[in-house]
Amino acid sequence: MEKSVCEIPVQENKPAQKLAARRYDSQNTIVDVDGIRFGDKELVIIAGPCAVESQEQLFTTAKQVAGSGANILRGGAFKPRTSPYSFRGLEEEGLELLAKARTLTGLPVITEVMDTRYVKTVSQYADILQIGSRNMNNYPLLKEAGLSKMPVLLKRGMNATIDELLWAAEYILSHGNEKVILCERGIRTYETAYRNTLDLNAVPMLRHLTHLPVIVDPSHGTGIRWMVSDMAKAAIAAGADGLMMEVHHDPEAALCDGSQSLFPEDFEKLMQDLQLLAPAVGRKMHAPHTALV
Amino acid sequence: MEKSVCEIPVQENKPAQKLAARRYDSQNTIVDVDGIRFGDKELVIIAGPCAVESQEQLFTTAKQVAGSGANILRGGAFKPRTSPYSFRGLEEEGLELLAKARTLTGLPVITEVMDTRYVKTVSQYADILQIGSRNMNNYPLLKEAGLSKMPVLLKRGMNATIDELLWAAEYILSHGNEKVILCERGIRTYETAYRNTLDLNAVPMLRHLTHLPVIVDPSHGTGIRWMVSDMAKAAIAAGADGLMMEVHHDPEAALCDGSQSLFPEDFEKLMQDLQLLAPAVGRKMHAPHTALV
Amino acid sequence: MEKSVCEIPVQENKPAQKLAARRYDSQNTIVDVDGIRFGDKELVIIAGPCAVESQEQLFTTAKQVAGSGANILRGGAFKPRTSPYSFRGLEEEGLELLAKARTLTGLPVITEVMDTRYVKTVSQYADILQIGSRNMNNYPLLKEAGLSKMPVLLKRGMNATIDELLWAAEYILSHGNEKVILCERGIRTYETAYRNTLDLNAVPMLRHLTHLPVIVDPSHGTGIRWMVSDMAKAAIAAGADGLMMEVHHDPEAALCDGSQSLFPEDFEKLMQDLQLLAPAVGRKMHAPHTALV
Amino acid sequence: MEKSVCEIPVQENKPAQKLAARRYDSQNTIVDVDGIRFGDKELVIIAGPCAVESQEQLFTTAKQVAGSGANILRGGAFKPRTSPYSFRGLEEEGLELLAKARTLTGLPVITEVMDTRYVKTVSQYADILQIGSRNMNNYPLLKEAGLSKMPVLLKRGMNATIDELLWAAEYILSHGNEKVILCERGIRTYETAYRNTLDLNAVPMLRHLTHLPVIVDPSHGTGIRWMVSDMAKAAIAAGADGLMMEVHHDPEAALCDGSQSLFPEDFEKLMQDLQLLAPAVGRKMHAPHTALV
Repeated sequence: MEKSVCEIPVQENKPAQKLAARRYDSQNTIVDVDGIRFGDKELVIIAGPCAVESQEQLFTTAKQVAGSGANILRGGAFKPRTSPYSFRGLEEEGLELLAKARTLTGLPVITEVMDTRYVKTVSQYADILQIGSRNMNNYPLLKEAGLSKMPVLLKRGMNATIDELLWAAEYILSHGNEKVILCERGIRTYETAYRNTLDLNAVPMLRHLTHLPVIVDPSHGTGIRWMVSDMAKAAIAAGADGLMMEVHHDPEAALCDGSQSLFPEDFEKLMQDLQLLAPAVGRKMHAPHTALV
Repeated sequence: MEKSVCEIPVQENKPAQKLAARRYDSQNTIVDVDGIRFGDKELVIIAGPCAVESQEQLFTTAKQVAGSGANILRGGAFKPRTSPYSFRGLEEEGLELLAKARTLTGLPVITEVMDTRYVKTVSQYADILQIGSRNMNNYPLLKEAGLSKMPVLLKRGMNATIDELLWAAEYILSHGNEKVILCERGIRTYETAYRNTLDLNAVPMLRHLTHLPVIVDPSHGTGIRWMVSDMAKAAIAAGADGLMMEVHHDPEAALCDGSQSLFPEDFEKLMQDLQLLAPAVGRKMHAPHTALV
Repeated sequence: MEKSVCEIPVQENKPAQKLAARRYDSQNTIVDVDGIRFGDKELVIIAGPCAVESQEQLFTTAKQVAGSGANILRGGAFKPRTSPYSFRGLEEEGLELLAKARTLTGLPVITEVMDTRYVKTVSQYADILQIGSRNMNNYPLLKEAGLSKMPVLLKRGMNATIDELLWAAEYILSHGNEKVILCERGIRTYETAYRNTLDLNAVPMLRHLTHLPVIVDPSHGTGIRWMVSDMAKAAIAAGADGLMMEVHHDPEAALCDGSQSLFPEDFEKLMQDLQLLAPAVGRKMHAPHTALV
Repeated sequence: MEKSVCEIPVQENKPAQKLAARRYDSQNTIVDVDGIRFGDKELVIIAGPCAVESQEQLFTTAKQVAGSGANILRGGAFKPRTSPYSFRGLEEEGLELLAKARTLTGLPVITEVMDTRYVKTVSQYADILQIGSRNMNNYPLLKEAGLSKMPVLLKRGMNATIDELLWAAEYILSHGNEKVILCERGIRTYETAYRNTLDLNAVPMLRHLTHLPVIVDPSHGTGIRWMVSDMAKAAIAAGADGLMMEVHHDPEAALCDGSQSLFPEDFEKLMQDLQLLAPAVGRKMHAPHTALV
């Protein structure tokens, strides 16, 4: 008798990761960044602009997101851009501004590193290294991120399978760094109504397969501002450990990703909605940030 | 200066649907099926087996889902199967069993119609006609569903864009039938970790583009039992008006889709979780079904 | 030691088709339509307009393609269109015009059937029934096409796997009809530079897996007129048994698919190119059509 | 009146590349590597093993492919592998072996560079730098490849659009290096019958949009040995300027990509077939390699 399509086994007979796989460690791994614990009951909210554009832009937005309850500040100093003629970030000046924004707000900062030659420099300024989706298969970079021993946020490649994301994590883990946070950020499909297709199925699947924390980026995942809050809530309901979102004090003037960046008031409203949602799905929001009290 | 990828306009310059598009009717359309209102504040929960297999199987499962609070009973009498050698349903005998299960539980029933020649027959037994994902572009069937004036649940094709789903709805609407409910049920992507990739982005996007109610099928959307509840909750948090799920009193023995069917106790637990979740996102669950009191 | 990605077995442990699979019949099946033999050494060229629009349009184009050496005339009488407001074909009047064009040119005709209720009618006029890509999973239609005993051209669904295409063929074969011709016509991918992504990999794969003849439709496969000839030649070099192409005497004025229809002079040039190419890959072109001598 | 799907304009209103776009230079660019001219009438055939495994393996295969008429020798010294536990190449020892194989056969050599820190070293040994599909969006690496002024073979990312491939080329061109050869190598789709879906539509589309030479890699494009020759011929018929293929003197024992590597006798047969095919599509094969006479 023929086998039904619906009985096709998932990932049978495939090699599994040794260090990233759940069977290696039945407890969830908690990645602690200056007291902010990814993978614990409290949700971790990362927010900030796509790119660091200027001190005024960064500080304004940073204070707004900190005031609304964000736990970590994001901002790109090195930007991967499709066109060589686009704004590609302030580079080291951007790193310095991020460090100042950390002092200003008390929030740890995360920023992307794209080149093996810059891992050390970025590690001096940032609290978390971000490996972007375009670099998920940049194996030399994964190795350097592993050797750095820094907390690493690893974004799923826009065409990566769940299995490949876990193999990318394995590169970091196998070089002696257990501080890996996974991030679903949208995959590429035939659908053109959104910039990417945020794949929330990845959340329960990753939580099943790995002990590492899993967060979601609904800004890149959809590419459309008015979709971000709904998908952020959906991500939390699906079981995500946190969110990363783009917020800009003036999205219309943003040098990058303006159309998917939340206005500060959108972000404030979303944080209030999450205060209601989190307990309904067995999670908690962090207490207000003490540095701001 | 070149245009950033993130500024690509969504569906600019494309013709829009005349009747399905939101601008046609700024109010949400409510599709009322025997007092169960799709598109209203109360969430609508459809549950039941993939296929009607026997009176015992259907009645057992029907009583269980009704007891847990389902609002509508599903069950396939005509089954679209990849192989011609698979079980393809009890056909008219299945329709008769569904009608009896309605009498038994008081729940309206929904079942799939696959052939223009059967629209009248199925309409005599069912409360809602289901157009399955394989038939979303079966235009003669859409026309007959329109002419029938029955409530129609239209599932998104597994390779259909949001735009094409709305055009399929337009076929039904343009033949004089406004009672159309849209259903996201997973799309086909490169990812093989799940049977399909449930696309919850469709929920906010459809609510933006159309006035028609939108529900989600996390059973077909994932194809994996233990993913269904998490994705069901995520769908509601994303703004869906309801859910359709496969429940079987004995999934291991199911003739179809056993691996994605919930056990009755899974469904009971999910319904309790939704009682907590719904108010946290501004929705309500229906009051217990009076026929069972 | 872990298994390399490149060693993943193809379709291991999956049920195979009983009648469509190559092991059932080590000889290639030849489908003979009035002396035109699909699957033999001679390539079969099907050409004509997307839709039958009028007697003048059809006859003009039919004589042109016959004169250039086409073996079979195509033309749609029932057109599946995304929008209910688009031109959907002349229906039975179109069928009658096709029959007249056959008398005029001596070429057998192929046309699409979309509805189980029309299989008998279309069979009275056409020499080959076409099942379009949107209906590849329309199982009742596949069954009726099987029962009709007519030659059937089965187009791959735009999201269908090779395996599913063979299962669709199995539906026709298992209802007693061995005259099935498979047609690759482009699949849906993330790429937007072309209307569809013509998947020529399907040609060697299908020839490996099945004994049925395989042709290619580069018109729908690309959606862009100036790509058609290059992809037509590539299809033949990949091993296809023939081609189906849209040609219109005045593409700019076509009611359907104008932008992918060849001008008659493009088609004439392609036929000359194929005269050179065919022997270089071990195939032949048909001798000139005697009815026109 | 609504616009038909088939009339959607291709890439209208999108910014185009300044240097890679055809309008910049109506002549085709010819990239000359030691007298082997990519983009000219003669087809360029690159062949060799996936990875350099040992002197014996490399020299044996190198002599075989040179004897069959290959124009350039390929071989990986740095291998991007999904798992950190897989064989990742002989690194600098591999580069030295490639240089020796060049002396032995007289063929220029191509090898992949994956890390900005190795561009200079690889440039000392290789005649062409290969940027692999996983690194198509590794912008720092593209920049270094541009600054190196070496001939660069840029492979399309497995989820890259044609537009993005041209933007990646633009990165190299805009850093002062015009010697860019594009390579289609298969994209990721829902189809699982092949490892990747070789997209030959890219060939006519790229030749339309850019003046740069375009070759095809049917080994990675299909991942299946017995598909390689058919798809190689199809690529040439579609208009490709050359081919890159994996050949191994003992594929069963290969440390990488054995299942897609041609046996030397397969490659010899293919080269004979191409001698017939090339003139039938207006191209030529190179005269026999003089160093071997």
